[in-house]
Amino acid sequence: MDSNPDAVIVGAGLAGPLLASMIARRGYRVDLVEGRPDPRSARHDSGRSINLGMSARAIAALREVGLWQEARRLSVPMRGRMVHTAGGRSSFYPYGKDPSQILHSIRRDALVCLLVEHAEKQPGVRLRFGTRCVAVDRDAAAVTMEDGSKLTAGFVVGADGASSLVRTEMQRGLPAGFSREYLEWGYKEITIRARPDGTPAVPLEALHIWPGERGLGVAHPNVDNSLTCTLFLPRDEPPDRASDAFPHLAELVPDLDEQASAAPMGHLTTVRTAPWHHRDTMVLVGDAAHAVYPFYGQGMNASFEDCLALDRMLARHPRDRQAAFAAYERSRKPHTDVLAELSAQNFLELRDGMRSPLRLARKRLDLLLHKAFPGTWVPLYTLVSHTTVPYGEALRRARRQDRVAAALTVTGAGAAVAGLLAVLGRRHGRTSR
Amino acid sequence: MDSNPDAVIVGAGLAGPLLASMIARRGYRVDLVEGRPDPRSARHDSGRSINLGMSARAIAALREVGLWQEARRLSVPMRGRMVHTAGGRSSFYPYGKDPSQILHSIRRDALVCLLVEHAEKQPGVRLRFGTRCVAVDRDAAAVTMEDGSKLTAGFVVGADGASSLVRTEMQRGLPAGFSREYLEWGYKEITIRARPDGTPAVPLEALHIWPGERGLGVAHPNVDNSLTCTLFLPRDEPPDRASDAFPHLAELVPDLDEQASAAPMGHLTTVRTAPWHHRDTMVLVGDAAHAVYPFYGQGMNASFEDCLALDRMLARHPRDRQAAFAAYERSRKPHTDVLAELSAQNFLELRDGMRSPLRLARKRLDLLLHKAFPGTWVPLYTLVSHTTVPYGEALRRARRQDRVAAALTVTGAGAAVAGLLAVLGRRHGRTSR
Repeated sequence: MDSNPDAVIVGAGLAGPLLASMIARRGYRVDLVEGRPDPRSARHDSGRSINLGMSARAIAALREVGLWQEARRLSVPMRGRMVHTAGGRSSFYPYGKDPSQILHSIRRDALVCLLVEHAEKQPGVRLRFGTRCVAVDRDAAAVTMEDGSKLTAGFVVGADGASSLVRTEMQRGLPAGFSREYLEWGYKEITIRARPDGTPAVPLEALHIWPGERGLGVAHPNVDNSLTCTLFLPRDEPPDRASDAFPHLAELVPDLDEQASAAPMGHLTTVRTAPWHHRDTMVLVGDAAHAVYPFYGQGMNASFEDCLALDRMLARHPRDRQAAFAAYERSRKPHTDVLAELSAQNFLELRDGMRSPLRLARKRLDLLLHKAFPGTWVPLYTLVSHTTVPYGEALRRARRQDRVAAALTVTGAGAAVAGLLAVLGRRHGRTSR
Repeated sequence: MDSNPDAVIVGAGLAGPLLASMIARRGYRVDLVEGRPDPRSARHDSGRSINLGMSARAIAALREVGLWQEARRLSVPMRGRMVHTAGGRSSFYPYGKDPSQILHSIRRDALVCLLVEHAEKQPGVRLRFGTRCVAVDRDAAAVTMEDGSKLTAGFVVGADGASSLVRTEMQRGLPAGFSREYLEWGYKEITIRARPDGTPAVPLEALHIWPGERGLGVAHPNVDNSLTCTLFLPRDEPPDRASDAFPHLAELVPDLDEQASAAPMGHLTTVRTAPWHHRDTMVLVGDAAHAVYPFYGQGMNASFEDCLALDRMLARHPRDRQAAFAAYERSRKPHTDVLAELSAQNFLELRDGMRSPLRLARKRLDLLLHKAFPGTWVPLYTLVSHTTVPYGEALRRARRQDRVAAALTVTGAGAAVAGLLAVLGRRHGRTSR
């Protein structure tokens, strides 16, 4: 190595290359190290990529590095959820009150390649693929690679995912809190291919949901008119045949059982930990700090928001990196803790709520009120997905609304508009971001 | 090695040698491996042993292997708590309604030596000290020692404490839940020496408590008339001088500040995890399965109870070890989860409650009712410490009593006896064990 970098980022998944690009703009020399091969020469081989839905937080972060328009071109808009129920019926629930409130479905590998490509172009960024980091000296900010070589930097960033080695090494022997939970349901990924004439098997611009008997299918559209469908299933007693759990999906996917049998069962995990940093030498971002279940579609969005937050704190404390790391952790962790809760709750919502007329009515009411009072009434889903209001603040606002809405759902919404105006009028104008 | 043992127990702390003795009686050939040297040749060197209070559960387990009378001879009875408050005053709160309800203070190393000595005498038990286990093959039930040698057995027991390597290896890559919390307070251990004339500095047969300003001192008596005192202190901002936090203790221990400065700060951790076993090849006992804070004095008691439970399940399922492990885990984990909660709550109780007249009054009332209705009213502390009622069941009973007692504490106990008889009469006779 000709010179020591300012930072070593371990992990070139999603957060790693984004953060590299961000801090490189501030003049940091960054080495980005990754055990796997360069994704640009090894695409589509992981077999374990729930498609991603880019929403407000990811968009803000990608805009920051000038990548949003390119990312958008690689994605398919999802304008709402399409829920497929008994007898081949389906219902569509728009994501937001206007056409701008949509999600953007993108394949994980396509986004990673875009980010890596961009990072590589930044002056001061060096990419090192196929070199696994096997040890970290937390006080020296040094990482040891599996070939025995050592890399010393100003600081080390752990962007190496839910099973982060950097986190383990950083916290070894220190009084660090840590919890790891696994959902009792796992997942298998299958493909809903386009029809022989090239058209999509279901309307493309939606997130598709198949509530099953002890199963849940969720499909994201791809630019080639196929959809990537994730089958969520109980790990302990998965159905013998996927077509038993998802009869309506089986009509669209003739080889559903074959695809499901061949797919490995993936696990879903929530990781909480603290601290996220060690002195001024180490810091964590993304899943290494806070893995969440995918049911709110916010894992990648939150990871990108981490990068934005860390980058800003480094700029705010140019001479005191420890203060920057501490401020970053303080500002982010309460909100990612809330996200972990929301993501776990949304599993139940998706599993049970999509078949519950009361909950579906509640969703429609939320959206109705949002249209009537766009500045004051914003559903939690909208706050989380279509704004950058911090997760914890979003939850607090939603809870206030919940108290009102619960009453409305039961008593009927019609006559309550006058009362609502009185309740909400005070907070008018505090919502839009 | 001349032959493969039936079981390898990793860890010769407290649970390991006890379990070895228990299952050896059933004809199991057991190798007990431990990285540290034989404690009988290296006593008193850990510097990290909160003294232990043996109570009903430990006593039951030690009786099972015929060691209780010997253990008792190495211990000092503690008949209650002595709380030292402002102005050099102290108050005594007996542990139970009669003289049999006492705890037995013993040095950890003395108990470990007794257990190791006993295990060594059992036919079929081999001890291997100074040989650290560095890897485990969970499916083959094989452990690799740091000298490269390998030991294959019918099954492997992880009795290797809160940072269990066996647990890590058993759960690696599997969807195993795990959480580790650290208390915001740590501890330092000091000695309250006997007076020059050989008499103890405070009455010996009690657990002594010094509630401090942002500190808590707890002392266990030793057979040599000294006491081992544990100073619990906030880790982040410990007092500059221990004598500031514990002025009354400083009167008894002239070199308090010197001792406290020299002592390392220990950490207190709660570990929860699942599963506790893997097929029929691996199982966890003691802190490896459920480390708890020491504030209920139940860590060792619960570990010994694990050994009893596992031993019994092995006897109950002689031809299906996986069923034995599963039954053991199912029967124990709900109760050790409750113990973890109780131990965390008791930290607050000890930290704040010893200075609260209301809470102290509540404790006295509990004991009064216990004396009046020994079969029906049993305080939670008594259920946990002086019975072998499972922890979860103890908590459920205590909650029923709490609802009554809360009312009594506020309204005065006098006139309520008649009402109590009506409330409790129904359950009469269900309590004693």
